[in-house]
Amino acid sequence: MIEKVIGIDIGGTTIKMALFDLTGLMLDQWHIATNLVNDGEEIPDEIIVSIKKRMAENNQSLDEVLGIGIGVPGPVTEEVVKRAVNLGWTDFPLKQLIENSLDIPVALVNDANAAALGELWKGSSKQIRNIVFVTIGTGVGGGIIVDGKIINGTHASGGEIGHIPVQAEEERICGCGNTNCLECYGSANGMVKTMNQLSNKTVVTNTKEIFDLLQAENPQAQKTLKITIDYLARAIAGIVNTLDPEEIVIGGGVSEAGSVFLEPLKESINDYAFPQIAGNFNLRKAVLGNQAGMYGAAYQVVNTLTKKGRE
Amino acid sequence: MIEKVIGIDIGGTTIKMALFDLTGLMLDQWHIATNLVNDGEEIPDEIIVSIKKRMAENNQSLDEVLGIGIGVPGPVTEEVVKRAVNLGWTDFPLKQLIENSLDIPVALVNDANAAALGELWKGSSKQIRNIVFVTIGTGVGGGIIVDGKIINGTHASGGEIGHIPVQAEEERICGCGNTNCLECYGSANGMVKTMNQLSNKTVVTNTKEIFDLLQAENPQAQKTLKITIDYLARAIAGIVNTLDPEEIVIGGGVSEAGSVFLEPLKESINDYAFPQIAGNFNLRKAVLGNQAGMYGAAYQVVNTLTKKGRE
Repeated sequence: MIEKVIGIDIGGTTIKMALFDLTGLMLDQWHIATNLVNDGEEIPDEIIVSIKKRMAENNQSLDEVLGIGIGVPGPVTEEVVKRAVNLGWTDFPLKQLIENSLDIPVALVNDANAAALGELWKGSSKQIRNIVFVTIGTGVGGGIIVDGKIINGTHASGGEIGHIPVQAEEERICGCGNTNCLECYGSANGMVKTMNQLSNKTVVTNTKEIFDLLQAENPQAQKTLKITIDYLARAIAGIVNTLDPEEIVIGGGVSEAGSVFLEPLKESINDYAFPQIAGNFNLRKAVLGNQAGMYGAAYQVVNTLTKKGRE
Repeated sequence: MIEKVIGIDIGGTTIKMALFDLTGLMLDQWHIATNLVNDGEEIPDEIIVSIKKRMAENNQSLDEVLGIGIGVPGPVTEEVVKRAVNLGWTDFPLKQLIENSLDIPVALVNDANAAALGELWKGSSKQIRNIVFVTIGTGVGGGIIVDGKIINGTHASGGEIGHIPVQAEEERICGCGNTNCLECYGSANGMVKTMNQLSNKTVVTNTKEIFDLLQAENPQAQKTLKITIDYLARAIAGIVNTLDPEEIVIGGGVSEAGSVFLEPLKESINDYAFPQIAGNFNLRKAVLGNQAGMYGAAYQVVNTLTKKGRE
């Protein structure tokens, strides 16, 4: 018998699932559509049915599955999903519903935190146990991993680094209700807004257009990049001076721009970092893309099993 | 036999030492002067002699001492003191020197981190395992504790929250070499500088004078308090949004001003904190004063012993 775990990443459109061995080798992957009817109440049953069907099709026994990790787009406690606006869930007992049906231990994890764990498990070298994961996409998210474990926080709000306050001359209202959070300036949306403000009209609608203009040495695009990176670098340097992690991992759509974005970001973090850290820290691009959530959800349950085994 | 540990806090003037039982009850305390001759080379021997003498005087056996924790004013690794400018140490093998002589396990810890651990051990309720400790004195220091353990960091720079970059109209050079670190504005020194700048002359030389002027409703003093707290609150909210700790503990000389300082600080952190955290976090004043370092150094070695016991 090969011991296995399942990692699930619930998104607003698709639920991605994969079967792993305990070392993180992906053995199988599949997906189903996210069923949003009845405030997402059908989702647990559809996950259960899909797992049973897939395992049967592959002649695999559920007895070999030691645990199921589930990444969710919202804050989670060990027991419930506190809130997942896109799915319609509030204090939703996802863990219990799946465990009761399949009799397999379930571990919940926030989706950004899952992506961070995925990068730790499969993207970083084995020795690394402490990373700061920053995802720069529509918003700015993060996952803080200390000694191999995610910091979920006292109010399930660990890693909410997109909401670090920044100082700006203007005021941008954040989706969270606060004003001038990092993600108002450091995200793809923030970058587009900055670019259009500097141009005094709507010249771009996405960051790809900004990076195209950068290649043409457009001055507004250059200034936009500089401003965006300065906000991100200050905030990341603040985190780095607080936690002094082994590795900073940058993911999300904007990171796909590659070195044109990551090189000046690293340089700028260097300028703001504590002297003992500056020049000595490791910053890399995330490597798992949209599979990171499945890997990390699986790792979350592997972590839980290891902990239980020790008790 | 009662199992005991010794906690030591090495300062630039005095070395404070105390004997504890494993629950953190202080059984005895004493101190010696810090001998700075020969780049602090005499210090280990003087600590050893002092411990032997004190134990003998009290008819106590060194066999009952399971470990010695030592707080040091500088970054430490598990093995050495990387640098302690005030003592003259660079890559100083303090642990080995004491262990070789007394044959008792030694654990090193940075002094701000020791103070944080002390507050966790004796200042917080037993259930609390995650705190952010901020010490606001001449400078701004900190200690980040996750799951009962200090984050010492990859470059022994964990908790260097005084060096979180802040945005300001002027430029103040920090002792670390960077410009506009939090402690340039949020420390006692920063506060005095701000007050004198607002007054266009030197009206105060310490924060006590500022707090006295505050009582007299001096407008510059009020503005100084507001500015200082805003810098601190932004940085602390950034940490809180990243780590979502169970408790924020404020220590250091400035915290002794009490509620006139701590109440507006808490309010301001509330304004900048992520909505799920705002209004729900716990902030308290440090309670151990200048004994925190001894408590925390002792706790560091208790932690080490427990870890070894589990292996």
